[in-house]
Amino acid sequence: MEQKRPGRQTVALGQPPALTGWASVAGKKEGEGPLAAQFQYVGADDSFGEKSWEKAESAMQRLAFSYALDKAGVTASELDYVLSGDLLNQCIGSSFAMRGQEVPFYGLYGACSTMAESLSLGAMLLSGGFGRRAVAMSSSHFCSAERQYRTPLEYGSQRTPTAQWTVTGAGAVVLEAEGTGPRVTHVTTGKIVDKGVKDPANMGAAMAPAAYDTIRTHLAETGRKPSFYDLIVTGDLGELGRDILLDFFHRDGVELKNLSDCGLLVYDRERQDVHCGGSGCGCSAVVLTSLLLPGLEQGRWKHILFCGTGALLSPTSTQQGESIPGICHAAALEGTARGGERG
Amino acid sequence: MEQKRPGRQTVALGQPPALTGWASVAGKKEGEGPLAAQFQYVGADDSFGEKSWEKAESAMQRLAFSYALDKAGVTASELDYVLSGDLLNQCIGSSFAMRGQEVPFYGLYGACSTMAESLSLGAMLLSGGFGRRAVAMSSSHFCSAERQYRTPLEYGSQRTPTAQWTVTGAGAVVLEAEGTGPRVTHVTTGKIVDKGVKDPANMGAAMAPAAYDTIRTHLAETGRKPSFYDLIVTGDLGELGRDILLDFFHRDGVELKNLSDCGLLVYDRERQDVHCGGSGCGCSAVVLTSLLLPGLEQGRWKHILFCGTGALLSPTSTQQGESIPGICHAAALEGTARGGERG
Repeated sequence: MEQKRPGRQTVALGQPPALTGWASVAGKKEGEGPLAAQFQYVGADDSFGEKSWEKAESAMQRLAFSYALDKAGVTASELDYVLSGDLLNQCIGSSFAMRGQEVPFYGLYGACSTMAESLSLGAMLLSGGFGRRAVAMSSSHFCSAERQYRTPLEYGSQRTPTAQWTVTGAGAVVLEAEGTGPRVTHVTTGKIVDKGVKDPANMGAAMAPAAYDTIRTHLAETGRKPSFYDLIVTGDLGELGRDILLDFFHRDGVELKNLSDCGLLVYDRERQDVHCGGSGCGCSAVVLTSLLLPGLEQGRWKHILFCGTGALLSPTSTQQGESIPGICHAAALEGTARGGERG
Repeated sequence: MEQKRPGRQTVALGQPPALTGWASVAGKKEGEGPLAAQFQYVGADDSFGEKSWEKAESAMQRLAFSYALDKAGVTASELDYVLSGDLLNQCIGSSFAMRGQEVPFYGLYGACSTMAESLSLGAMLLSGGFGRRAVAMSSSHFCSAERQYRTPLEYGSQRTPTAQWTVTGAGAVVLEAEGTGPRVTHVTTGKIVDKGVKDPANMGAAMAPAAYDTIRTHLAETGRKPSFYDLIVTGDLGELGRDILLDFFHRDGVELKNLSDCGLLVYDRERQDVHCGGSGCGCSAVVLTSLLLPGLEQGRWKHILFCGTGALLSPTSTQQGESIPGICHAAALEGTARGGERG
């Protein structure tokens, strides 16, 4: 069946692949948060038995990969593609996780939008007939991110109020051309949007304009109203970025009442000291695989717009005085529960 | 038209997209090499008018992007996808190049295999009906790579004999679902292969097993003999890696007489002090766009297997004692000149 292209950035998949298995692996702090009971595995000390934080991040991806395959009843040798990425320099979290797995592999870099990017590309590869089974995956680790992007933990640096907390976690999703489960029905590919925010401790503000651009484009191109979705979920805008996004839509006369953000869902901000909320590639990856997909499977929700948000900066670009380019990729997810489309 | 899948890793594209425009932008040293006359633009001092090497790398990508669009007669607003990546931490070479271009963007990380990865994914997106026009792109810069991976240039470190020279260059290719030009007919997605090489100054040896794996798989799955191709071109194995690859095939009783390597084509190793040859994402990107695609267009060659090779290491993984995972993605290119398939 042909793909439909209602607009330049959006594709309605002709053969929407089913998400047949998924898993989330999370760190200790995340395991003390509101999603604790839904994670497949919570590490006791964030080391995952490894000698470095970077190796621990790869171990998390391997675990999530393995649990997700088990849930789908699929073996690695049956996979046609694995699409994965992370925040580490040269994406070693993903490469070293998939070393020795004997799977066709495409490495991605979309910063914290990577889970949505891998899900989008994986869904298109299957809908286009390029394979039958794929895994989309992503991860981040608080300790590897802190020492790479900011300062080593040992310095005990104080965090600004706009800062977010990088999630220690990995999420993996199995996509199958034929199978039962929630489906990816539409993909909206994001553009790079940079409104000049230069503060790397305020990435919510840097990413909110990209989220606005992609969500607005998705709604315009599909002709859907925000209310079509039970949830519109951004990746990791945090409290400030979420408020900016709401404000952008408010100026258009649109109240996004069903907007939620993985960065606000993953921690209990009253009890857990995370300032503006969670962030990192792992943030949307673990919320997708512990909350959103189970909710779609169980009929709690019927339609979710999953919007990965990424800040495409590096410490080098910041040191050279650059502002922070943002990007947002959106994938429309449809639940398995019975019932017609809502209008 | 449906995609055909002769094997797990290889897809024969049902609607092979045409490469309708391409361009290469290169640095001063590359502009003194054998491909000098074919580059669209050669920088006088490798700064490309920018204040940092990283910004210079983005400037090269923007230039290649712009020249390639011009050659294809396509505007940026007509693009459905841009797929790009580079070697810099968080791929800022690509993100900052595409900032302000208003194009749907997917960031990739395949180390030096990125040009083949972007070409492969771009070709599949178009063949699958997900868009009509895409740009595949990649870059590297000697100076930004040296200070990131090795030591700042100011240290004047001595290079080992197995070292390769990171190409300062960017290549961009316009793919169109309908159009005239060389076509991408097959894509073979690589697996991560790691045979335990730990020396980051010997990446040819680290990548050769991945190239062997992908080329052998491509030939087995398509049923093609090596002689089907006028050229089998690896990305940047250099002299040592090339010899290892030849040796692997020799042990199988196969003499790859038509094997060439972009790392050996881009410099004059007699005159230019590059040890084992060129490397970097830009290496295969500029050889593809200055030599291979023009040769296919002009009828010099009919069939080329373009095999991007990547070493998925980082300085951190090396410092932590890890070996170097390699990957190789292959895209089969067919020229526009008349004449039936060779057997």
